[in-house]
Amino acid sequence: MGLDPKRTVAELRELQQLTGDENGAQRVAWTETWARAREWLREKVAGTGAEESVDAAGNQWFTLRGGSDRAVLIGGHIDSVPNGGWLDGALNVMAGVEVLRRLADEGQPHVTVRLVNWADEEGARFGRSLFGSSAAAGSMADQDELRSRKDANGIALPDALSEHGVQLDSALDARSELRGAAAYVELHIEQGPVLESLDLPLGVVLGTFGVERHQVAFRGQAAHAGSTPMDKRRDALAGAAKLELEIRGIAQRTGEGAVCTMGGVVTRPGIVTSVVETAECLLDQRHLEAAKLASMLDEAKKASQQFAQEENLEVEWERIWNIEPILFDDALIGLADESVKEVAGTSHRLPSGPLHDAAEVARAGVPSVMLFVQSLRGLSHTKLEDTKEAHLELAVQALDRLATKTIERVASG
Amino acid sequence: MGLDPKRTVAELRELQQLTGDENGAQRVAWTETWARAREWLREKVAGTGAEESVDAAGNQWFTLRGGSDRAVLIGGHIDSVPNGGWLDGALNVMAGVEVLRRLADEGQPHVTVRLVNWADEEGARFGRSLFGSSAAAGSMADQDELRSRKDANGIALPDALSEHGVQLDSALDARSELRGAAAYVELHIEQGPVLESLDLPLGVVLGTFGVERHQVAFRGQAAHAGSTPMDKRRDALAGAAKLELEIRGIAQRTGEGAVCTMGGVVTRPGIVTSVVETAECLLDQRHLEAAKLASMLDEAKKASQQFAQEENLEVEWERIWNIEPILFDDALIGLADESVKEVAGTSHRLPSGPLHDAAEVARAGVPSVMLFVQSLRGLSHTKLEDTKEAHLELAVQALDRLATKTIERVASG
Repeated sequence: MGLDPKRTVAELRELQQLTGDENGAQRVAWTETWARAREWLREKVAGTGAEESVDAAGNQWFTLRGGSDRAVLIGGHIDSVPNGGWLDGALNVMAGVEVLRRLADEGQPHVTVRLVNWADEEGARFGRSLFGSSAAAGSMADQDELRSRKDANGIALPDALSEHGVQLDSALDARSELRGAAAYVELHIEQGPVLESLDLPLGVVLGTFGVERHQVAFRGQAAHAGSTPMDKRRDALAGAAKLELEIRGIAQRTGEGAVCTMGGVVTRPGIVTSVVETAECLLDQRHLEAAKLASMLDEAKKASQQFAQEENLEVEWERIWNIEPILFDDALIGLADESVKEVAGTSHRLPSGPLHDAAEVARAGVPSVMLFVQSLRGLSHTKLEDTKEAHLELAVQALDRLATKTIERVASG
Repeated sequence: MGLDPKRTVAELRELQQLTGDENGAQRVAWTETWARAREWLREKVAGTGAEESVDAAGNQWFTLRGGSDRAVLIGGHIDSVPNGGWLDGALNVMAGVEVLRRLADEGQPHVTVRLVNWADEEGARFGRSLFGSSAAAGSMADQDELRSRKDANGIALPDALSEHGVQLDSALDARSELRGAAAYVELHIEQGPVLESLDLPLGVVLGTFGVERHQVAFRGQAAHAGSTPMDKRRDALAGAAKLELEIRGIAQRTGEGAVCTMGGVVTRPGIVTSVVETAECLLDQRHLEAAKLASMLDEAKKASQQFAQEENLEVEWERIWNIEPILFDDALIGLADESVKEVAGTSHRLPSGPLHDAAEVARAGVPSVMLFVQSLRGLSHTKLEDTKEAHLELAVQALDRLATKTIERVASG
């Protein structure tokens, strides 16, 4: 019974049948459907002899004891957004199951190998993503704030977790799970268009972007669209328009891997007969290098001030959220490159725009790396999310080879 | 008892006391407060001997019979927006009352002089402005549509009108009122910043702008702000931003009197983590010359198509509303210029951005003209609307002189 990538694809379809509907995957964390998916996963792994345990944050672990307590971790998440895709998170878990089967079939591995199904990667119900992995990483700093969060039906986060055996107050006890962890590997769909545009099935992830997210508000003066001459206007929308166009130049000057997005503008009063008084812009900037990210932010702030001066406006910045870049392990990136080349001929290194559980594990100091498999049309978080079956099979093979190389590396110290 | 401009100011304050509150004027058409204002106006005019009549559209007429049935009309509107200013519309009416008093005091005028208080200039309750004047002008073409309009409380327009003795079905009978009308004059606050910026109390209005109002929708592709490289984006907001900046150039190239406004942008999905898929822009373009307005519209359309091509977007135009420019009468503009010069030393000709009842009367073929008096800070439709008392008094004097000159002109054929 060797590695059978076609079985992974078949099991993903079985899971989608069991936990999805005509609108897509419905495995939202801390729901009945999610619990059913975890029960189904437990049955799938049972044959391998790996021991199941659930930690204090609700993460589901399957441990194949090896010749050493030092452990190689393979991670994924079976939870989805509502109306989600069949692959996001679940591919990672099911490919990991296949690797466990192959390893178990070959007898005791040189080191311990653990598959972890992280709890609530998506944060779909309570708006807090990476719940389980941030607890295990010890980076969960917002427990007081989480205590007061409620879902759309008014149910508090601690109550929902409690129904699934997790006490928010002790979630950080999951930190003990990473003791002995020597390496972490994760496979994920790209959720972007890069690999498809390069016509490559697989890529190696360099790390996750640092993110600076701000609301930028330009303020001018509402004035009648008919009676106010052009040279007497203080049009807040002009400031927003200039900034929208400028951020593309900032990304271009910063070089490959920089992204800047104005995801929305809210105009007030926003009526056809008035010059815009206030334009509130949502700005998202990302880069893999902290210094470059800081410089992008600085450039955008300076540009906004210049535009405000040109247009006789005021401008105000408010930080919504930020996170530093998290880089994956050089040695593991090398092993991942070899693995991809062996199964697909060509590898490609790319940063990850979205965050992943791997970033939390890397933050905790565990050498980590991710593989990306091509996403068709870059779509995810929708039932339209898809990847060619041939590419899914290559992805399982690449993860398997990466697991083998990582085990060898950890075993050899 | 000659002309007493100070009395006009005092009466405007009395009206504000009677029909306003701490939030401003509340004389919304087809309400009790509006009816009270009309009753108050009736009492003010009673002493002049002018006969009152209310036409089929609810317009309130005060007729001073002259030596000829040919009539000079002086117009205004006593209705206001909710929380409105003390001068918009009411100044016109009360200055007209003062002119009627002076004329009546001097005996029978050479021609008939009529003061008209138009019904529902603002359209504040049902969203249809210039109700009474468009009925009298015969340009009210939307009666079927008006029949189904409801106010914020669900009361239908025909029912509200009926409470004030007006039947929508017969409103167009008001057309008979303009038979015999030889000229129409109207005074109004500028509602814009031009006269204040020139430090002039009074101006002569050349006509009302033609307006082209469109929704311009740019459509691209939503994509993850983190995982979509800059060169793979189809960002609808970029099209909107370019158009917002371009319309200023269009106005500038067209020359003085051209205005272009993007009054609002709605972005979808409008979230910080996604490139904008759809940007719906509200575009308002105005000019006093039809050919220049058409050319401004054409330029904006071509620019939008160019931007769509540059950004790999689709763009779609939908007309919301338009109206042709309406020019006032050359001879009356000359008389208005003389009148302003006599009372203020300097006159200035300017177009009107907002529409006015005078435009409807001019459309009906009656030679018309308007005077503007300076608005402080260009504000109107707010309780902050104001004009210096000295300027209000000059305005009453200028309207009086314009009435005299117009009567002489009409009397001499």
